[in-house]
Amino acid sequence: MSDNLNKSDNKIIEPSILAGFQEYLPREQMLFTKMLDIIKKSFESYGFIPLDTPVLEKADILLAKSGGETGKQIYRFEKGDTDMAMRFDLTVPLARYVAQHCGELVFPFRRYHIGKVYRGERPQKGRFREFYQCDIDIVGSGSLSLLSEAEIVSVINATFEALNIGEFTIMINNRKLLGGYFASLGVDDPTEALRIVDKLDKIGAEKVRAELCELGLSPDAAASILNVTSMCGAPSEVLDKLEAMRADVDNEMFDTGLDELRRVCTAIREFGVPASRFAVNLKIARGLDYYTGTVYETTLLDYPEVGSVCSGGRYDNLAEYYTDKKLPGVGVSIGVSRLFFILQDQGLLRPEAAKAPCDALVVPMGDVLDASAAACAALRTAGVRTQLYMEPKKTKAKFAYADRLRIPYAVIIGEDEKAAGVVSLKDLRSGEQETLTAEDAAKKILSGLPPVGAPVGEKEKKQ
Amino acid sequence: MSDNLNKSDNKIIEPSILAGFQEYLPREQMLFTKMLDIIKKSFESYGFIPLDTPVLEKADILLAKSGGETGKQIYRFEKGDTDMAMRFDLTVPLARYVAQHCGELVFPFRRYHIGKVYRGERPQKGRFREFYQCDIDIVGSGSLSLLSEAEIVSVINATFEALNIGEFTIMINNRKLLGGYFASLGVDDPTEALRIVDKLDKIGAEKVRAELCELGLSPDAAASILNVTSMCGAPSEVLDKLEAMRADVDNEMFDTGLDELRRVCTAIREFGVPASRFAVNLKIARGLDYYTGTVYETTLLDYPEVGSVCSGGRYDNLAEYYTDKKLPGVGVSIGVSRLFFILQDQGLLRPEAAKAPCDALVVPMGDVLDASAAACAALRTAGVRTQLYMEPKKTKAKFAYADRLRIPYAVIIGEDEKAAGVVSLKDLRSGEQETLTAEDAAKKILSGLPPVGAPVGEKEKKQ
Repeated sequence: MSDNLNKSDNKIIEPSILAGFQEYLPREQMLFTKMLDIIKKSFESYGFIPLDTPVLEKADILLAKSGGETGKQIYRFEKGDTDMAMRFDLTVPLARYVAQHCGELVFPFRRYHIGKVYRGERPQKGRFREFYQCDIDIVGSGSLSLLSEAEIVSVINATFEALNIGEFTIMINNRKLLGGYFASLGVDDPTEALRIVDKLDKIGAEKVRAELCELGLSPDAAASILNVTSMCGAPSEVLDKLEAMRADVDNEMFDTGLDELRRVCTAIREFGVPASRFAVNLKIARGLDYYTGTVYETTLLDYPEVGSVCSGGRYDNLAEYYTDKKLPGVGVSIGVSRLFFILQDQGLLRPEAAKAPCDALVVPMGDVLDASAAACAALRTAGVRTQLYMEPKKTKAKFAYADRLRIPYAVIIGEDEKAAGVVSLKDLRSGEQETLTAEDAAKKILSGLPPVGAPVGEKEKKQ
Repeated sequence: MSDNLNKSDNKIIEPSILAGFQEYLPREQMLFTKMLDIIKKSFESYGFIPLDTPVLEKADILLAKSGGETGKQIYRFEKGDTDMAMRFDLTVPLARYVAQHCGELVFPFRRYHIGKVYRGERPQKGRFREFYQCDIDIVGSGSLSLLSEAEIVSVINATFEALNIGEFTIMINNRKLLGGYFASLGVDDPTEALRIVDKLDKIGAEKVRAELCELGLSPDAAASILNVTSMCGAPSEVLDKLEAMRADVDNEMFDTGLDELRRVCTAIREFGVPASRFAVNLKIARGLDYYTGTVYETTLLDYPEVGSVCSGGRYDNLAEYYTDKKLPGVGVSIGVSRLFFILQDQGLLRPEAAKAPCDALVVPMGDVLDASAAACAALRTAGVRTQLYMEPKKTKAKFAYADRLRIPYAVIIGEDEKAAGVVSLKDLRSGEQETLTAEDAAKKILSGLPPVGAPVGEKEKKQ
């Protein structure tokens, strides 16, 4: 048949994917999918609505703001007369969506979006050109309470607790504080100064000092900035130190920032986030200039080298490029592809924690398809994920298949079982076998499934 | 602040998305997400493993086979020296994946993939340039039992039953049957003849007759083909008619096709698929030439105008362009974006069936953030999806918010509730209100949630 209906004189092309792209083998994929499910469930428990927007957008829409870095990294192309580009984050599409559908949304609009984004960066270890972002944002119409900024910390806390990848610290700051402080030192371009400060961890204090001086700051002013941005610790301590500076700084924006930071920190405690889980860190500036208040970064205490795994902030005008409406908001993004890569790279994934593709493999022995299919149906109806083994292989090969996929139970059906209307249930871990009805087998399987483990590394593993 | 940190002298760009692309408003999005969840759960109940591959692939990989139609429709572009393209289906990426990771997979490899695909077609109603496909495939190494072809019908049956969008018929055929029959009539190019026959519904019998004659067939042969391809009905009837033709046709491929079709039909019944749900339809040919045996189409009885909503077939060589290994398989794809569009277009979506974004809205009255946040935490721990209302609005506005989002319960907390350590639970549908602990409120809410309705149209609505 294939000779008649298919042309088979083709040349083999070596199968591979694009540099900087990635995909998982089944077991890793199941772990990754599980991470996304945990994140999704956590976001939904806070009343965030799922959102999905096109991966391709009009280039002028996506690039309304940028021009710089993003413009170079973007996947942009023309088809016919249309200039289109692949989204490089989920925030610009959110801004476009909210501006476009403004009249049909209920505000505050709370959405989560788990989707792939694209950046044509130079490939390097752990940095991908296609990766998942998991974003939440709360967008107000006209105004948005500061409490939302505190709630975001509560969501991050709940989500990383659910992910079960060890202890973490959510670090917050307020850009008005730094902006006001910089202004008090006579800095003309606080945004640029913030961008320089944001590179502290990357390039170190001395280079930051040099860049601040290049910006026109005096060595004294640069030293003051480095001094202030080194402040980090429990909110009460840092707030007290900042309070002591209030009179000297004598800047309205600084005062507002300090007041906001204090209110947000108080509210975070009221939201029940443990004191050990968050800190004020004046170094957190976030390079993106649309943040206007609270900013967040989250570090894993066991893997500080990963950098921030969840970052974001408050912005006053989400969609200023698409509408005159004032749409203030606050949001964060979890870089889950990178996080997963690091855990995998460090050998901290626990492949054995991945669920098997099914709970039971029904193994027919002989001409018993009808009875086997009936058993499958009964098991599935009871909620058991069930696969029928259909290949005409030897018994050994059938069980080797179950073994390789780590399926915990086999349900064996031969002529005798068929005649008696029962099944032989075999626990493939213990080897125990018993004869019972399909319905009872389902109960037994459901009660005997392995506990669902943490998908990723445990602290113990590191020691 | 925004004057200092943001440049706001920008021009507004009218927010819109690319022609032929789509996105949903929140309530529709929740319904669509629910459809995908139902499909996912159904696939998983059969032991299919989730798979996710890059949206962008190397152009020479994606286009290894095509050249024709697909080449024109594809989103293809160069970045640097790299020639890349967006996937136009999930089958070619599957072929590449299986060939590439062959040694690390367990066969038969059963995977599902729910993902977006891209086709730069001329935009028309209900046809999108970006849309979701939901695919399942079973891929064997070297061989694959015919039973898999029957099981696919069982999966389609279970999935569409779960989707609850009315009655449907799964129509099957075997390309060897038609191929052998065409060969017996002296057709040189059975693949091309199959492609013509596949257009029967689109262009009608007379045009098909004309095209077959153009292919070099005699009017008698064309008439015979039209006669055979009009055969459609209960498997036993059609199989009997075909059996009666066996001696006259006298073609080995026809015999094989008939034997396979009989075995597959018998197995489908043994899989428990109701006889009313499937039929043999000799007109089903599928335009794609990689199918080599059983082919499937699924039509909704209430919406025949939609065409097939789930199609696929058996192929003998999934990855012949990427490997010498023989990888036979069988799979189907649900065109869920198109299906959803049609249901929406016909007014058959039931927006009221969409869950609210949360089950309870906690409404603080006064300075009670701590007590309100504690109530949220208690509700979430109990499994109630809970949102805290945080804006400093009037009471009326708070309840209007709950109303617009159709949130079923409000949990009101004022100074009195805080002092007494209780909450006031209000059923927003009945207006009933009572005072109880947060834990008891959680139980009450979980037991009183509206039943989850069918996401899409009911048969009654059509009458």
